[in-house]
Amino acid sequence: MNRGFPVAEFEARVARVQAMMADHDLSAIMVTTHPDFYYFTGFLTRFWASPARPWFVIIPQSGKPVAVIPGIGAALMRTTWVEDIRTWAAPDLQDDGVTLLADTLREIAGKGRVGIPDGHESILRMPVADFERLKNLADMPSIVSDEQIVRKARIIKSEAEIAKIQTSCDIAGRAFDRVHEFAQAGVALETVFRKFQMACLDEGADWVPYLAGGFGPEGYSDVISPATDTPLQKGDCLMLDTGLVHDGYFCDYDRNFSIGPPPQIVADAHKKIIEATAAGFEAAKPGARACDLYHAMDKVLTGGEGRNDNGRLGHGLGIDLTEWPSFIAMDETVLEPGMVLTLEPGVETRDGNMLVHEENIVITETGARYLSTPQGEEIRIV
Amino acid sequence: MNRGFPVAEFEARVARVQAMMADHDLSAIMVTTHPDFYYFTGFLTRFWASPARPWFVIIPQSGKPVAVIPGIGAALMRTTWVEDIRTWAAPDLQDDGVTLLADTLREIAGKGRVGIPDGHESILRMPVADFERLKNLADMPSIVSDEQIVRKARIIKSEAEIAKIQTSCDIAGRAFDRVHEFAQAGVALETVFRKFQMACLDEGADWVPYLAGGFGPEGYSDVISPATDTPLQKGDCLMLDTGLVHDGYFCDYDRNFSIGPPPQIVADAHKKIIEATAAGFEAAKPGARACDLYHAMDKVLTGGEGRNDNGRLGHGLGIDLTEWPSFIAMDETVLEPGMVLTLEPGVETRDGNMLVHEENIVITETGARYLSTPQGEEIRIV
Repeated sequence: MNRGFPVAEFEARVARVQAMMADHDLSAIMVTTHPDFYYFTGFLTRFWASPARPWFVIIPQSGKPVAVIPGIGAALMRTTWVEDIRTWAAPDLQDDGVTLLADTLREIAGKGRVGIPDGHESILRMPVADFERLKNLADMPSIVSDEQIVRKARIIKSEAEIAKIQTSCDIAGRAFDRVHEFAQAGVALETVFRKFQMACLDEGADWVPYLAGGFGPEGYSDVISPATDTPLQKGDCLMLDTGLVHDGYFCDYDRNFSIGPPPQIVADAHKKIIEATAAGFEAAKPGARACDLYHAMDKVLTGGEGRNDNGRLGHGLGIDLTEWPSFIAMDETVLEPGMVLTLEPGVETRDGNMLVHEENIVITETGARYLSTPQGEEIRIV
Repeated sequence: MNRGFPVAEFEARVARVQAMMADHDLSAIMVTTHPDFYYFTGFLTRFWASPARPWFVIIPQSGKPVAVIPGIGAALMRTTWVEDIRTWAAPDLQDDGVTLLADTLREIAGKGRVGIPDGHESILRMPVADFERLKNLADMPSIVSDEQIVRKARIIKSEAEIAKIQTSCDIAGRAFDRVHEFAQAGVALETVFRKFQMACLDEGADWVPYLAGGFGPEGYSDVISPATDTPLQKGDCLMLDTGLVHDGYFCDYDRNFSIGPPPQIVADAHKKIIEATAAGFEAAKPGARACDLYHAMDKVLTGGEGRNDNGRLGHGLGIDLTEWPSFIAMDETVLEPGMVLTLEPGVETRDGNMLVHEENIVITETGARYLSTPQGEEIRIV
């Protein structure tokens, strides 16, 4: 399968960021996390699972990104379009890259301003003590907010990125179609989780970073708990929600299944969340705001009461399982073509139990297009 | 299978930390990451894959931890031993938990000092702008280093923790024994990766957060690159290195395989890394320092030259794929019973190619014990 991106794609990403940097008088932007590394350089590895080493990429006002990374990453970074790769022998208990990073920032940004992602959903992946030390070294550029530039760049996906998310969605779709092979009454949820992950891999996932789910006779009371050895029973509603990855891009959607014919309350709830998803899809077009989609879905779900314990009815999607924006009442992000989003309405059945549905879409010039094959209003029966 | 821990285990962990807090005049410790959450509360979820929401647990000078978390986590947190659970409707674009967190810190720590993990291998998982805002609110306790208290607590594993890591090691061992089923000449590395992850799940892994590997006729030039569609060839040396998880605890070890009989240079290199592992194991006992194990292995590998591009010859292991300490020349951490460690020597074959071997061990009262079944000096042939 088609992996990676042409250099022109990275050039376009960096150029877009550099234009925004000029508007905000930033001499450089520094990023430290896996998604930002992959976005700007193409550096893709599962080694981020190890918290032992900090990693830095600096985007100057003009020219290519500069990597300041542990020596163990040099060989892989040399396969990307990045040419200026500076390494240290990490871990170094006295100076874990801080001096090398400071020298590089001084060289690139002089006495200017270096932006870092510092807003909602961002993480600075370096020890706090090292960050404090860095800021207080002599003759350093000042380290300031990136004014959400990185978020603004990543939120609009290229055709090549959308194609990768489409591939992930297709893989998950084939895996969901195989759930009947292993989800039956008497089978423990942890076994279902295991077999579903195997199905995702078998259908082409590179890996399965995220799987959540739940089950119960009238839905489930929680959507983030790990699987236990409790077996499914006839009449249960089972939900599986996966974030699987192909070439570094996630899908993130779920399917509900009834173990045998569903009780009426579950069948009705399922129709309701499909209806809410359709309302969100209908509202999804350039110029609409994230809160407009929230209200469109919430109107179906609660009649417009805005009750929503889990906080949102969908979100962005891409290199991260969840990205900006959020479908909540206070998010006024304006939708633009190229945004990849999840519609994720949930409805309470009874006594704190619920059903949650999720689809993945992309905003087009005229509206939206499904990346996941949308589920019909009838719940799947296994 | 046996999941979770008895409450007494969490009480002991918190008591150990509280004793160290008293020594350092800390009124509270605040943690923000998955491993620290699981360690102190038992809160285990894959939802950490979403960067959207910050999470906080505060350990007071006495009593149970207090959780300040997004509403979506309340149901799961209520299943743990934590009783004081404070939630907000996250994401909140105006105030994503900061006010609730500040109120809680003031209540628990008064005008005292709140420690956060801030040293090597630590990450503060909250937006930098929110952290700055938090520190500058009125009447706040001061936020300072936790003096590595959390690291010092987590580095010594209980019998129950060691049992979980043993389970993960056993699962990986069974998966490594099945590599011959799918790793043959003509099969692409990405297919091998996929099938190996499926084997890990089939043998009992909850999930497979980490898989790395490489192959080539005289070893591999890199150990963190993703798999490509390049097929294995007869005579290649293939390495697979997995961090799979059972009930929140990792194993982290690898095996090398020769596709058909190995060339002499590979057979010799394999003997060398097994010999180095044995030297590390021999040196591993209470009172030895991390650097002593480094030198014991390095003496076999390079005759004591200390060349080591990848930076270390092993590390700690537990809830994280890699934990403190590092087997490097500058790490003087003294080994104690209950530390779970990886021995991970590598040797160059030719032209930048290498073989790397890894085993998992636990320090006992009298020496060390293998958690992975140690590989013999002959490379496995498939």
